[in-house]
Amino acid sequence: MIATETKKGARNGVDTPTLFATLDAVKGQPELAKFQFRVSNRWLSGTNSRSRVETFRGAGGEHAHKGDYTYETDHPSVLVGQDNAPTPVEFLLHALAGCITAGIANIAAARGITLTEVTSRVEGDIDLLGLLGLSKDVRNGYQGIKATFEIKGDAPAEKLKALVEQSRARSAVFDVLTNGVPVDIQVQAA
Amino acid sequence: MIATETKKGARNGVDTPTLFATLDAVKGQPELAKFQFRVSNRWLSGTNSRSRVETFRGAGGEHAHKGDYTYETDHPSVLVGQDNAPTPVEFLLHALAGCITAGIANIAAARGITLTEVTSRVEGDIDLLGLLGLSKDVRNGYQGIKATFEIKGDAPAEKLKALVEQSRARSAVFDVLTNGVPVDIQVQAA
Repeated sequence: MIATETKKGARNGVDTPTLFATLDAVKGQPELAKFQFRVSNRWLSGTNSRSRVETFRGAGGEHAHKGDYTYETDHPSVLVGQDNAPTPVEFLLHALAGCITAGIANIAAARGITLTEVTSRVEGDIDLLGLLGLSKDVRNGYQGIKATFEIKGDAPAEKLKALVEQSRARSAVFDVLTNGVPVDIQVQAA
Repeated sequence: MIATETKKGARNGVDTPTLFATLDAVKGQPELAKFQFRVSNRWLSGTNSRSRVETFRGAGGEHAHKGDYTYETDHPSVLVGQDNAPTPVEFLLHALAGCITAGIANIAAARGITLTEVTSRVEGDIDLLGLLGLSKDVRNGYQGIKATFEIKGDAPAEKLKALVEQSRARSAVFDVLTNGVPVDIQVQAA
């Protein structure tokens, strides 16, 4: 757990003192930890749509990101889309890589390890017989995801590997992808 | 199931004849349905990293997207990041909205319904006591996701609502998020 690590100064671009101060603040006022993230989406044409990342709630208030972030998604031409953007399922792989990598940097900073490089490759296998409605025995989504991390820094290999393991054990995206989450869908039609 | 709907011409920007031809091709040669999607990621600094969407395999071959797609992710300043990009968990919401919206357009086209507007808002609630290591009783990821779709087109409300339901029932991202998927993580450290 990050909060119990030895405190060090800023490292890996992580403002460690502020990170620990934040953890202390949340310990004293747990309701600060309740966050809500939001995205809106608008259909463009065919399988192409565009999402906007909206404000989020947390730490006792509403916050806007410092940038205005919009992302499209589409199906590739081999799946009869226009390929104007990556597929929705590719964004799941990006989310996984980004979440575990952010955790690695935070945990390394907390443990006094300076990183020089973290790269990863994430692959997801999917059999489209499911989502195409051609087989009831095949699920709609990925059947498996494999992520391979390469990590370099000023610590022995075992300590570097332990960073990835600890990040995985605290990753929001890894948790959601492996354990699932209730999703409620409402519709207004006119 | 898309494949059993009445065939119509292109509609909603969906090339319906090609969609049905693709389904027929996959029915005759199910190994065409096996896809692998891939993303690579590189740590930048702090909690900031950048993913590149790589080539994908499927339909019997390797394919490059028509564009070169890279996406960053970061933690917000309130969570001691630089807020150079949205959080990893926000990309999960984008993936969900995009996947269900693409399905709505495909299914509407197959059913001969012309859509005029599809918008959605997706919210994910997360209690950071889990991922911060401050409570063992709180999960790391979202506790729940709520998606609200608004859909307009030339069909009665019940038929429009049924499009969303059928898309949900065939959505790869909805399946992964609600049912989970095995994720294997390997590490090379130096």
